[in-house]
Amino acid sequence: MAPPDVFPTVSVPVLEGQEVLQFRESVQPSRRPAVLRGMNLGECTRRWADPEYLSARVPPGAEAKVHVTRRPDMDFRLKNFEYRTMPLAEVFRKASKEATDGDELIYLRDVGRDPRGRHSALLQSDFPELAEDFRLPPGLFFDEARLFSSVLRVSSSGVRVWTHYDVMDNLYAQCVGRKRAILWAPEEASNLYLDGEGKSKIIDVERHHPDDFPRFSKAVRHVADLIPGDVLFIPALWPHNMKAESPGVAVNVFWKNLDKDLYDPKDAYGNRDLLPAAKADRMLDNVIRQLEGLPSDVKDFYGRRLIAKLERKCLTSPPK
Amino acid sequence: MAPPDVFPTVSVPVLEGQEVLQFRESVQPSRRPAVLRGMNLGECTRRWADPEYLSARVPPGAEAKVHVTRRPDMDFRLKNFEYRTMPLAEVFRKASKEATDGDELIYLRDVGRDPRGRHSALLQSDFPELAEDFRLPPGLFFDEARLFSSVLRVSSSGVRVWTHYDVMDNLYAQCVGRKRAILWAPEEASNLYLDGEGKSKIIDVERHHPDDFPRFSKAVRHVADLIPGDVLFIPALWPHNMKAESPGVAVNVFWKNLDKDLYDPKDAYGNRDLLPAAKADRMLDNVIRQLEGLPSDVKDFYGRRLIAKLERKCLTSPPK
Repeated sequence: MAPPDVFPTVSVPVLEGQEVLQFRESVQPSRRPAVLRGMNLGECTRRWADPEYLSARVPPGAEAKVHVTRRPDMDFRLKNFEYRTMPLAEVFRKASKEATDGDELIYLRDVGRDPRGRHSALLQSDFPELAEDFRLPPGLFFDEARLFSSVLRVSSSGVRVWTHYDVMDNLYAQCVGRKRAILWAPEEASNLYLDGEGKSKIIDVERHHPDDFPRFSKAVRHVADLIPGDVLFIPALWPHNMKAESPGVAVNVFWKNLDKDLYDPKDAYGNRDLLPAAKADRMLDNVIRQLEGLPSDVKDFYGRRLIAKLERKCLTSPPK
Repeated sequence: MAPPDVFPTVSVPVLEGQEVLQFRESVQPSRRPAVLRGMNLGECTRRWADPEYLSARVPPGAEAKVHVTRRPDMDFRLKNFEYRTMPLAEVFRKASKEATDGDELIYLRDVGRDPRGRHSALLQSDFPELAEDFRLPPGLFFDEARLFSSVLRVSSSGVRVWTHYDVMDNLYAQCVGRKRAILWAPEEASNLYLDGEGKSKIIDVERHHPDDFPRFSKAVRHVADLIPGDVLFIPALWPHNMKAESPGVAVNVFWKNLDKDLYDPKDAYGNRDLLPAAKADRMLDNVIRQLEGLPSDVKDFYGRRLIAKLERKCLTSPPK
């Protein structure tokens, strides 16, 4: 097999010990990712490594809806996975197995107890039996009142979650297993071929796609290899791609880092665009509609004029 | 003196003789510039070479408002020229003189007889005594009912008119003197640093500006060297830059090549953006206003998302 292609890459800085105290003063304001290593996350890092422990802790008969796939790189467009409801005990056992090619792989992302998905996931209420094993130093990272969700994630080895961005700052606490996180700065948005929903069209992020996605190759990736006890800070709007390098369990904590009124009250997952941005996007549809009747070369020209204006007015470092 | 810098350049095709008949069938629909060479433009090519002839033909005491500059590259931003009203006879004489460094140079662009500039220029009514010397084969290029303006242009040798675009197809009939036209395809709009008015910020188009305008260097220029009897087709929306290589007289004929309702009825110069485009531009201001209160990194990110949508929806060949 050919070696993986090389992309411009920087390592996400790893902060140990006392440095975590700087989180609110310097890490979060920097708007860049960082790994806080060696955090005391509670008993989870020890206990949750055992799927039998997890299976025994949850109520008998409890079920969860999970992604099941035979292809490690999940593709939300081809939908090469299915959603399946299964007993939680089975989820933990199945995910913990080392799989071989073609085996079913599991990915659980807790969506909360509301069957209509209208409430955000909270470890405390969704898995109260497990919640006591997990802790983040209270108040260290954000004001508790700003908490939006704490999401349990369980992955088979090899499962990769497509590149997407969230609209809230979040901490990805790796409790069990290893995970490789690839992140891109928000300025790289146009090199990632994000679709209207904010998901990248590029599923295989380890390969160049010079014909289909030429700009992807130059996007600088920030890479973090997470081990148990690591807490990865994922700033809002940083597209990221997560791959489980071994069976893994994580808790992902989201909070509203900006003015609360900016967030969509119907957002259950922390990934609906900020209200002013969503409104701007809808308004842009009307702008585009104005150009609809024009010949394609005229539409192209005025499209470029509009783009130039957005570059001038919105970008921090507009193309010169 | 260092040789002028080299830019990617193609020659505008020169069509001779019968080929001009193809204009409506192939040249105009191609949306690319072309030079129609050796046209019979009437007596102007012979008579107008003599400034005394021109001076004698216009009514005694007739005046015109002209650009007067000591710097050949006129700069509409620094305003390195002044507007001056002078007798027409003086305009013709002054413009015909070979000038040396620092001499006053003349540029007349007929603006019509309406002092408020609300009507477009028409050679026939503005200079009836000269109009009989000039002809374009009627109906060959466009339906007469679509005629918008026919603009007399008189230039001192060396005068360069800043890069701008017009919203109507036009024919630039070179009657006297030589002129170099540099044109860029509308797709190059973003490489020309057009301001909100559609004029390029780059005045010295013969030099690279890697620090200020890095994208300018890669814009492909279409160059035409005009001689008397040449008619240059300038398609709407093609930014262009015109330099008089000798004292020159030209007639520039504009017509409404698209649905008449698309044009701004208040446009006297043929360069006000098409109504739907102008409306889209105003609406975009409101879109941008939505993002105003957001932190700059958030605004930058969502600005890029909007740009990506415009690329997808408006551009003929969106960046891959």
